[in-house]
Amino acid sequence: MTEGHGDDIYRYGASAVRYNFSSNILCGVDHTPLMRHLASCSEAVTNYPEPVPAALERQLAHEAGVEPDCVTVTNGATEAIYLIAGAMEGMTSAVLQPTFSEYADACTLYRHHIVNCMSLHDIPAEAAVVWICNPGNPCGRVIDKAVLDGLVTRRGDAVFVIDQAYADYTILPVMTAAEAVDYDNVILLNSLTKRFSVPGLRIGYATGAAALLDRMRARRMPWSVNGPAIEAARFLLGRKQEYAIDARTMHEEALRLSDGLRRLGVAVEPTDCNFMLCCLPEGSSRSLKEWLIERHGILIRDASNFYGLTPAHFRVAVQGRQADDILINAVGQWMSLSL
Amino acid sequence: MTEGHGDDIYRYGASAVRYNFSSNILCGVDHTPLMRHLASCSEAVTNYPEPVPAALERQLAHEAGVEPDCVTVTNGATEAIYLIAGAMEGMTSAVLQPTFSEYADACTLYRHHIVNCMSLHDIPAEAAVVWICNPGNPCGRVIDKAVLDGLVTRRGDAVFVIDQAYADYTILPVMTAAEAVDYDNVILLNSLTKRFSVPGLRIGYATGAAALLDRMRARRMPWSVNGPAIEAARFLLGRKQEYAIDARTMHEEALRLSDGLRRLGVAVEPTDCNFMLCCLPEGSSRSLKEWLIERHGILIRDASNFYGLTPAHFRVAVQGRQADDILINAVGQWMSLSL
Repeated sequence: MTEGHGDDIYRYGASAVRYNFSSNILCGVDHTPLMRHLASCSEAVTNYPEPVPAALERQLAHEAGVEPDCVTVTNGATEAIYLIAGAMEGMTSAVLQPTFSEYADACTLYRHHIVNCMSLHDIPAEAAVVWICNPGNPCGRVIDKAVLDGLVTRRGDAVFVIDQAYADYTILPVMTAAEAVDYDNVILLNSLTKRFSVPGLRIGYATGAAALLDRMRARRMPWSVNGPAIEAARFLLGRKQEYAIDARTMHEEALRLSDGLRRLGVAVEPTDCNFMLCCLPEGSSRSLKEWLIERHGILIRDASNFYGLTPAHFRVAVQGRQADDILINAVGQWMSLSL
Repeated sequence: MTEGHGDDIYRYGASAVRYNFSSNILCGVDHTPLMRHLASCSEAVTNYPEPVPAALERQLAHEAGVEPDCVTVTNGATEAIYLIAGAMEGMTSAVLQPTFSEYADACTLYRHHIVNCMSLHDIPAEAAVVWICNPGNPCGRVIDKAVLDGLVTRRGDAVFVIDQAYADYTILPVMTAAEAVDYDNVILLNSLTKRFSVPGLRIGYATGAAALLDRMRARRMPWSVNGPAIEAARFLLGRKQEYAIDARTMHEEALRLSDGLRRLGVAVEPTDCNFMLCCLPEGSSRSLKEWLIERHGILIRDASNFYGLTPAHFRVAVQGRQADDILINAVGQWMSLSL
């Protein structure tokens, strides 16, 4: 779908949004060095980019300790999702719900038979492709690593597409690139979006056994990742330490925010990350969202359009102690008003 | 295909290339204001772009004097080509050859029956889609407007995909956006790449009747055009006068360069643009290309992989009187060496 995703800040104008809880991406990262670097890279604008970003793929593969042909860089993880769905055209796909809507959308485009599963136990024997977001979105839960490893091993007949976009936002263990490559039935999806807080750039990548990636690579169009995105990615990967994410502290703050919202009567699901799924005891998240943006300049993610969720569901990501308290107070104010 | 296109400057490193004749894109455009603007747009990096670049679409539609839903912005014209081929899956496609290879590649991916045509007269009655690059690439010829209009009208049963990427490089008349919208069987492809000399950004767009574009829009993935590309496009469109292209002067220089190469014994096809298709009397363009880059830092486009062309074909675009004379002298030197 091209509408209905989170971080719809463009609808309201950046100036109307003082606190953006809608995006589960770190706030407050200083991109001055990156912007300065991009300003100096006029060749990234005046020359064609590489048809496929091979130099960046080598850099990511080197970092992950895998062979270069085990990494495919894409225009955001979203392009990888569409390439995989196209390569697996018409197959039966199990989608672990609720989750990012693009897995099912891409599978629909390529005429998959889609089975929506609310738990790993529901994955049907006939599933040829299994789509799992881990850590999950919108819940922020991480699947126990041994459980997932066991499933991938047991179901060697199915391809597991495991989207680890949020892996840097948890301290719990997730699958490594090397482990994914060793399986011949796993494609890991990653993105620089969350790791470096650059959702505007659209740089994702898939990691897996070369033969598996070849099936999606056969469908690639040239130049899908533009010059500034490639330049920015190479710059950021060279400065990883400066972009280190303190997942532990963020998670502690997420627990504090959860508690604060729960005390208001909001049901908050347990999370292993910096964001959490919430459910209002009454009223709609849509109405809460409109009120918060108008009255407080606070943007939240109306989560009602996730499969299996209700009009009362919304998602927020921690934005720092002070901002989080402002959110708690504002939600409390709205709830007392609507009673 | 992801390899074999022109402007493979990334293979040699920008520093090895002193004269880039391989890309038919204007050289020497001063992008300082654009780069300064991009440096100031950190929100284009820190926020998600619009899922579809609707604001940019409205701007382009307004400029062209058509309704907003008659314009679809894509990740380069290449994404439009793949979306159209997907929407017309399995149909019979006529491709006017020799031309940009992505039309046939996209049609192959989506299992079209492809008929390669060397002239407009060869287009078979059963063609449901007709792919025409006008002005043509690699030849730089413009189809007589009355002839093309007549064909589009007569063949109302077929969809004409007319790629006008090079329209700003000729003074001859081509189809306008308003004309394309009035037909219900034309999709015009355009790009900011050539108009503003920004191949690194990947901003293309399709113009046509809304119902026709809806078929490709149904296949779009979100965020395919990234934040810096959208920001740059909006900036450039607001400064059109500063990027005015002197197609007449460039064409005069193209005729001079053609004459110079012909005097050496190179066969040069007539062109209406700033670039031209050449054919060596003996030896291969591949060998000429390697020699030119090593000895003179000159990059040309080996055109041997265009459908219907031979190992002796290459393409060059004018780079200004002085550089063009250096090319003529260098080609002459190579030809005398290899005799």
